[in-house]
Amino acid sequence: MYSIKQLQDIISKEVDQISLPAFPAELYEPIRYLMQLGGKRMRPVLTLMGCNLFTDEIQPSIIPALGLEVFHNFTLMHDDIMDNAPIRRGQATVHEKWNPNVAILSGDVMLVKAYELMMQVSDMHLRQVLNLFNKTAAEVCEGQQIDMNFEQYDTVNVDQYINMIALKTAVLLGACLKTGALLGGASEADAEHLYQFGKKLGVAFQLQDDILDVYGEPEKFGKQIGGDIIANKKTYLLIKALEMAQGTAKSSLNHWLNTQVFIAEQKVNAIKLIYDELNLRELAEEKMQAFVEDALLHLNEIKADQTRKQLLIDFANQLLVREH
Amino acid sequence: MYSIKQLQDIISKEVDQISLPAFPAELYEPIRYLMQLGGKRMRPVLTLMGCNLFTDEIQPSIIPALGLEVFHNFTLMHDDIMDNAPIRRGQATVHEKWNPNVAILSGDVMLVKAYELMMQVSDMHLRQVLNLFNKTAAEVCEGQQIDMNFEQYDTVNVDQYINMIALKTAVLLGACLKTGALLGGASEADAEHLYQFGKKLGVAFQLQDDILDVYGEPEKFGKQIGGDIIANKKTYLLIKALEMAQGTAKSSLNHWLNTQVFIAEQKVNAIKLIYDELNLRELAEEKMQAFVEDALLHLNEIKADQTRKQLLIDFANQLLVREH
Repeated sequence: MYSIKQLQDIISKEVDQISLPAFPAELYEPIRYLMQLGGKRMRPVLTLMGCNLFTDEIQPSIIPALGLEVFHNFTLMHDDIMDNAPIRRGQATVHEKWNPNVAILSGDVMLVKAYELMMQVSDMHLRQVLNLFNKTAAEVCEGQQIDMNFEQYDTVNVDQYINMIALKTAVLLGACLKTGALLGGASEADAEHLYQFGKKLGVAFQLQDDILDVYGEPEKFGKQIGGDIIANKKTYLLIKALEMAQGTAKSSLNHWLNTQVFIAEQKVNAIKLIYDELNLRELAEEKMQAFVEDALLHLNEIKADQTRKQLLIDFANQLLVREH
Repeated sequence: MYSIKQLQDIISKEVDQISLPAFPAELYEPIRYLMQLGGKRMRPVLTLMGCNLFTDEIQPSIIPALGLEVFHNFTLMHDDIMDNAPIRRGQATVHEKWNPNVAILSGDVMLVKAYELMMQVSDMHLRQVLNLFNKTAAEVCEGQQIDMNFEQYDTVNVDQYINMIALKTAVLLGACLKTGALLGGASEADAEHLYQFGKKLGVAFQLQDDILDVYGEPEKFGKQIGGDIIANKKTYLLIKALEMAQGTAKSSLNHWLNTQVFIAEQKVNAIKLIYDELNLRELAEEKMQAFVEDALLHLNEIKADQTRKQLLIDFANQLLVREH
């Protein structure tokens, strides 16, 4: 059995050794650049863990794990154009450092490279691994589109929101674990339970992000506190607030949502006050906890060694408490 | 054996029946829109012809043929953003009708759908079909990047230019024919000869486009005559002119290339005069003919029925004389 640290080291080495043509530089240099900005490598580590849950022969899952990390970085490259984001992991985004055309085309070839890497599995696994990858890739695009659509909507309900974050971020975590499981020889039933474990956990992570935006400690969160509030982002907290607020709280909320010119700190404090009055932190944490418990039920169904399952729980805990 | 018309009808029906989710509409509606703008469907027809060269059982090549057409349209959707093109086949481009973000993301999911369609082959063919598709998709992106780079270069030589058009447009024609051939049971050697036939012919088509931009009949060409000249596009003709022009022709050429404000007709006529003096039409036609002959040598090597080969030659002739 591998430790999380060992799996992270394996992935880190693979990312460093990724083989790409030199020419044309504008196409391949941005891929190297973005891949080397770092990140937690959560997705490829989950892929290896999914495999290691069933076997110590994790070798067959290493290149597909890299493929899933390349895919994730492809989505970042294109999302950053769409979100007009200047900074990624403290560095200039690809469309800023080069230009949007380079980011579009380099992203396209990145998706092709991801497929190439996903294909480096045995014939026995080829079709099931690619079917899962196709389904997941389309869903991630759907999630991003729905997220962009939400900006235009007046209201979004909780179910729509959970569906969006499931598609945009959670299904990929499920797919990473399931890909590893399939390559590790898991039964279809066990692999599917692991998929659901990852997907539910992914929704929990996203709900945590919503909570941390408001209640996180700035030095640990690594992002501006209140960024979602400032941008009127329809997070779980804002959706619930819009649903629940009455009287003055409701007027105050609508006032801040419709005011274009404001002092950021005042807006953040005012909306936080409404969230506090409505007990939304508690409510969001309950919702998050419900997804964690659902995830654990699926893990429990899997026929695998308990120590190995515990490693997945430990990893989930690391991620879920990372910035509190 | 199927006629070209029969094959076109099969493709036309498949394109009309393409199955895509309804939601989110912003993601899938642009795909339907672009696919239904029409076009010659050259790529899927070539796929079926590649198959039909070896067997009358063309059924297995129909869905992959559609996949190659979806891929081609994906490249159009993204290229149109990069080229800032407002019109495609007489209608608004996707980024104009919707917006650039929709065109980026809808294009991304289109590439995923292309893979899904390419996977609808027997297990026996899955890996070779996808390997060819991966290689081709990466090359098409490389070709587009090199083409964009050329705009920044002072000079481009003929070899660089031929390499660019081979990557950007010709390899896909080769890949369509080869995919069909593989699915039709061709030997690897025959399939590879057919690939080379398509690739060489693709270069010839592109050289023809360069010639038609200057010497085509406006009503048949369907594009503005002299569009490449007006935009200083480094076509085969301009590259040769820059290489060969001396004295006054050279000064005149440099004058027009560096003049920002001009009357289009004057620039087109002046540069056309230089091309005429240098006999560039003849030179370009010779170059084009050399690629056609090379293509035919490859076709000649293939072990297949002569009548079926003739159909490919007929189709090539239709395309090569289409706008003269």
